[in-house]
Amino acid sequence: MKPATDSSYDVETRLTDDHHQSLKLWLRMLSCSTMIETEVRSRLRNEFEITLPRFDLMAQLERHPEGLRMGELSQRMMVTGGNITGITDQLEQEKLVLRVADSKDRRVYGVQLTELGHATFKRMAAVHEAWIAEMFGGLSSEQKNTLFDLLSQMKNHLTMRKLSPVSLITEKE
Amino acid sequence: MKPATDSSYDVETRLTDDHHQSLKLWLRMLSCSTMIETEVRSRLRNEFEITLPRFDLMAQLERHPEGLRMGELSQRMMVTGGNITGITDQLEQEKLVLRVADSKDRRVYGVQLTELGHATFKRMAAVHEAWIAEMFGGLSSEQKNTLFDLLSQMKNHLTMRKLSPVSLITEKE
Repeated sequence: MKPATDSSYDVETRLTDDHHQSLKLWLRMLSCSTMIETEVRSRLRNEFEITLPRFDLMAQLERHPEGLRMGELSQRMMVTGGNITGITDQLEQEKLVLRVADSKDRRVYGVQLTELGHATFKRMAAVHEAWIAEMFGGLSSEQKNTLFDLLSQMKNHLTMRKLSPVSLITEKE
Repeated sequence: MKPATDSSYDVETRLTDDHHQSLKLWLRMLSCSTMIETEVRSRLRNEFEITLPRFDLMAQLERHPEGLRMGELSQRMMVTGGNITGITDQLEQEKLVLRVADSKDRRVYGVQLTELGHATFKRMAAVHEAWIAEMFGGLSSEQKNTLFDLLSQMKNHLTMRKLSPVSLITEKE
């Protein structure tokens, strides 16, 4: 068997190292996110008897006082696993949200927080924010800024990549 | 209404700033993780007709050639939403895993990858690793190291915190 030349060996090693570094990084990121998400999910249930998708849906509406259509809501949800229509029905029964006809197209309905929904969410959001601050308490303010910047750079890359028709998966074919 | 003194104002502002910084950071981390997970999930389905929990289960077994019990498997899974017993049954039917009696306690069964399972996983894992490297391609090698270190520090904090009986949630009561 012919030994690989130095240069080809270097390229392969660098590729493998880079792949391993990225995979290790992804698994570490996934495990941090999962730990936080699991903890938030269980605290929301214990403290407020609310599921994470329900809380998430109310959070999206809080950011859009003018209301959101069902399609917009599903796009904006941060967590998966919730049935948007089912959650909206429940929240409507509890008078936390209401469906309103669109001002431009009366056949289209949007969802808004009621005053009760707004007040209820605000109370939960303050406690939720304190939990998150506690969970990120292992990092200094400067480290949090660095982490935020790195994640923002990553997010840009992930968003840009989607616009490009060429990706590893199509090149492979 | 009495104006707040300078010092109380500072403490409150700092607390609010810290809370907002952590929340922004968490939402950015969650959105990166969700984007990557969604993309991986859809590529695994398109390329290999395999679900993420199935791939994850095989990955755990790959790291433990001696086999894992069902309880160990559920603890080690990185993603949620999979029924471990159901997935194992399916993989067993496809001859990718097999159940073996524990060497110490014959009533207990462990799960192992078969040779076919091992070869199948290895092929998928190499492609999966290249996808991840591509998705993290927006960061330099040095930035990936920094990100890994920050996440490791976070993970330590999250793990330690669980051991402590005092947390915001218990103090609140």
